[in-house]
Amino acid sequence: MIIESIKNKNIKLVSCLKNRKDREKNDLFVVEGTRFVEEIPCDYEVIFYVLSEEIYETYDIKKLNAGSEIIAVSNKIFKEISDTNSPQGILAVVKQKKYSFQDILNITSDKEFFIVVEEINDPGNLGTIIRTADACGCSGVLITKGSVDIYNPKVLRSTMGSIFHLPIISEVNLDECIELMKEKGIGIFATHLKGAKYPYDFDLAKRCAFLIGNEARGLSKDAINHADYLLKIPMPGKAESLNASIAAGVIMYEVVRQRI
Amino acid sequence: MIIESIKNKNIKLVSCLKNRKDREKNDLFVVEGTRFVEEIPCDYEVIFYVLSEEIYETYDIKKLNAGSEIIAVSNKIFKEISDTNSPQGILAVVKQKKYSFQDILNITSDKEFFIVVEEINDPGNLGTIIRTADACGCSGVLITKGSVDIYNPKVLRSTMGSIFHLPIISEVNLDECIELMKEKGIGIFATHLKGAKYPYDFDLAKRCAFLIGNEARGLSKDAINHADYLLKIPMPGKAESLNASIAAGVIMYEVVRQRI
Repeated sequence: MIIESIKNKNIKLVSCLKNRKDREKNDLFVVEGTRFVEEIPCDYEVIFYVLSEEIYETYDIKKLNAGSEIIAVSNKIFKEISDTNSPQGILAVVKQKKYSFQDILNITSDKEFFIVVEEINDPGNLGTIIRTADACGCSGVLITKGSVDIYNPKVLRSTMGSIFHLPIISEVNLDECIELMKEKGIGIFATHLKGAKYPYDFDLAKRCAFLIGNEARGLSKDAINHADYLLKIPMPGKAESLNASIAAGVIMYEVVRQRI
Repeated sequence: MIIESIKNKNIKLVSCLKNRKDREKNDLFVVEGTRFVEEIPCDYEVIFYVLSEEIYETYDIKKLNAGSEIIAVSNKIFKEISDTNSPQGILAVVKQKKYSFQDILNITSDKEFFIVVEEINDPGNLGTIIRTADACGCSGVLITKGSVDIYNPKVLRSTMGSIFHLPIISEVNLDECIELMKEKGIGIFATHLKGAKYPYDFDLAKRCAFLIGNEARGLSKDAINHADYLLKIPMPGKAESLNASIAAGVIMYEVVRQRI
């Protein structure tokens, strides 16, 4: 049966998940596009898949998680619920995965490192930080209250699938987070223009965490005060600052370099 | 006199400069927003400034380049010609600056390094690469045919003013560019997943240039064949690739690190 009505309850659910509040209320998010949908790991619960009529006819459903319902809709309906201009005709409604501090800070090696982002607003920046953290083997990303939602479609797209690869906690209370990290012996580094030392001057092979601040305001005073070390990224040229995801990338790659 | 009509010839010019073809035909581009406009260096030719009625009343025009015409328009007109949702009421129409290979490759020291980007499509990525290159003291950015226009408003915003700080050449022919660089003794590095060595394994303190490829396809075969060295950015985690601007940032910061 091909669903033709926007009033179908599942279709209404997909539409309302475009809003952060509804995503939070339902603990769900939408993954869209062939490659991204096929990358959903088996330990994520897919509530249902939606395929456009056109895709449904030929799609090999063995590529999807077994046991989840598959709903076929008219091409017109798919276009209406899609978040993109040129939809690929496949999406999934997925249960959000919740990690606790205990999960993420359950340190098993001396090599773990973390990224804590404070009030990052730009979806592309947050997605890119998550993707880079994944590439670097970061143990987890912690995101403070006031940041963009990790399940925002633009954030998801920018992660390029990395959203599924490492633990992420949102809506983190910074004080609580840093206190728990310090108890675990994790060195807390804040990036700050007034830092006296470069990332290259620290031993980053030990367990550590890096605080990355808001695009315009940088880190809050509170975050700076909590840090064990202030570090400064050198800028021998004329630019006054770096993009937040570049700053995070430069630091994470210094961790990688020191550990090779 | 406050201009109230969209048919005024200067106002029509600002509107048409939203299109790349018109920017190229007129050799002009639009800089918008208080901070960005005030950062325009004196060696850039401002054809005219446009201020909204509201801003015009109180604005200190000493902050603008002397000698350029200032046009006041109604708030309604400004909103129509603005590229942003919440316009700050100030923009400038600026002459594009053209650099030749000779300008940019007129090597004066052994420390110069260059970024060559091939078919970068995302405005945010190109703007961020230019901003990071500026922060790192890069000697110039060369952009091949098929890339997004550097005067695209989103590119300009992402550069955060760095567009004014270092020489940039667009619409570059890759073969010609690399040949000229090799004549100058510049080592050509291509980032490639099949590279055998990390950036950390090379001596990047000498004059060098880095080729950065398209977001989806990476570098072309042609670009790879031209390179003297293939380098690979380590990815100890699960991500399969990096965002193009992050890859560029990691490499440029390795140059900075080695030169400190």
